[in-house]
Amino acid sequence: MDSQPKNQLNVSVDCVVFGFDENQLKVLLIEQDQLSDTHIPLTALPGDHVFEGEDLDHAAGRVLKELTGLEGVYLKQFHAFGNPNRTKGAKDATWLKQFRKNPDAHIITIGYYSLVRMEDMNPKASSFAKITEWVDVNEIPDLAFDHNEIFEYALRTLRDDTESYHISFELLPKKFTLAQLQHLHELILNRKLDKRNFRKSVKKIEELIPLNEKQKGVFHKPAQLFSFEMPERRN
Amino acid sequence: MDSQPKNQLNVSVDCVVFGFDENQLKVLLIEQDQLSDTHIPLTALPGDHVFEGEDLDHAAGRVLKELTGLEGVYLKQFHAFGNPNRTKGAKDATWLKQFRKNPDAHIITIGYYSLVRMEDMNPKASSFAKITEWVDVNEIPDLAFDHNEIFEYALRTLRDDTESYHISFELLPKKFTLAQLQHLHELILNRKLDKRNFRKSVKKIEELIPLNEKQKGVFHKPAQLFSFEMPERRN
Repeated sequence: MDSQPKNQLNVSVDCVVFGFDENQLKVLLIEQDQLSDTHIPLTALPGDHVFEGEDLDHAAGRVLKELTGLEGVYLKQFHAFGNPNRTKGAKDATWLKQFRKNPDAHIITIGYYSLVRMEDMNPKASSFAKITEWVDVNEIPDLAFDHNEIFEYALRTLRDDTESYHISFELLPKKFTLAQLQHLHELILNRKLDKRNFRKSVKKIEELIPLNEKQKGVFHKPAQLFSFEMPERRN
Repeated sequence: MDSQPKNQLNVSVDCVVFGFDENQLKVLLIEQDQLSDTHIPLTALPGDHVFEGEDLDHAAGRVLKELTGLEGVYLKQFHAFGNPNRTKGAKDATWLKQFRKNPDAHIITIGYYSLVRMEDMNPKASSFAKITEWVDVNEIPDLAFDHNEIFEYALRTLRDDTESYHISFELLPKKFTLAQLQHLHELILNRKLDKRNFRKSVKKIEELIPLNEKQKGVFHKPAQLFSFEMPERRN
């Protein structure tokens, strides 16, 4: 009655960690160690296998920590990628043969993403990651496997989430101006927003609380400060 | 260098097909065949293993067809579920032992959902499905594995997608009234909507096209008709 002759797949997680500072949106990449002297640079998203008996969310946190040293980053699952050819590129074969027992296995990967303040992070490469680096989202090189596709999907998801104002809550200082909020949105969406329309739309956000307080220590006319009331996280 | 001693997981897909008619929102369930005479009813979402070398989207379509006969349904991936205990409930053990080579395997499942017009569908049970049935979303019984959780997650996703107006495009007749659109939204969201606010918000939808045409054959004052211009489907 068992009609599944071949269903032993490998499952991995890949983490797309976006980093934000005042002026840039970057993503955290690793350079994978090369045992042989092929010298092909293999830049990739931090990712690795899920263990049998391990929860997916747990695996995402573990893998990110093992490869980059980052801990306690809130990672949100966004999509599973299962194209059987996703790891079959010529550039990936050498690496897979060196590091994997079954280099030809069909690997389903679950994508996770996060948006963090770069200044709060101090990534350090370990395990098969040789280097970690923050790379501008507009200057992503050719990545290992289908990681360019996974990155693009994550960026679209981040932008959609930003449009619905779910994402920026943790990135700004506790008290911020609407100009700071607009700047963050422009950076993520990669386009200028009309100031009047932006203010009209953000004022509909229930979680945005106007404070009875203004900026201090600025040379221009001090702007009003706002804060966010955190909504319950889904799941 | 291979630090993954145990990473042979099983991967499956589960399909949450919501069916809509004028007055109800239902979901398509199957009763799983029981080889032995335990007589425990095992109601479940249609789902089964992904084959090695098979694309996930393809697997979702194949599995839905194999179990329910439905073909050509647009299925959208929404979440991966990987809790190692998700198939370890006592009620599931008997069934797994009968139908699976590795009844104790850790199975990651990828959830897909769809929203269809029930009248266009004619499901017929086959493979290990004995019966297919449309069940009201408010009357879901205790399901196999973690399928109650998967169903709830799909329903939340459907509601979120409805709030952003992405979902209802294919469910209404080609030409429809705003009352019909509001009724569909109320059914999915499971709450009454204020008519004035609803109309104000839907009129902002670019894809909603007012037609130079009114209802025919109604006893009340005929309402204006609208149609949708389909947006590009994302991936």
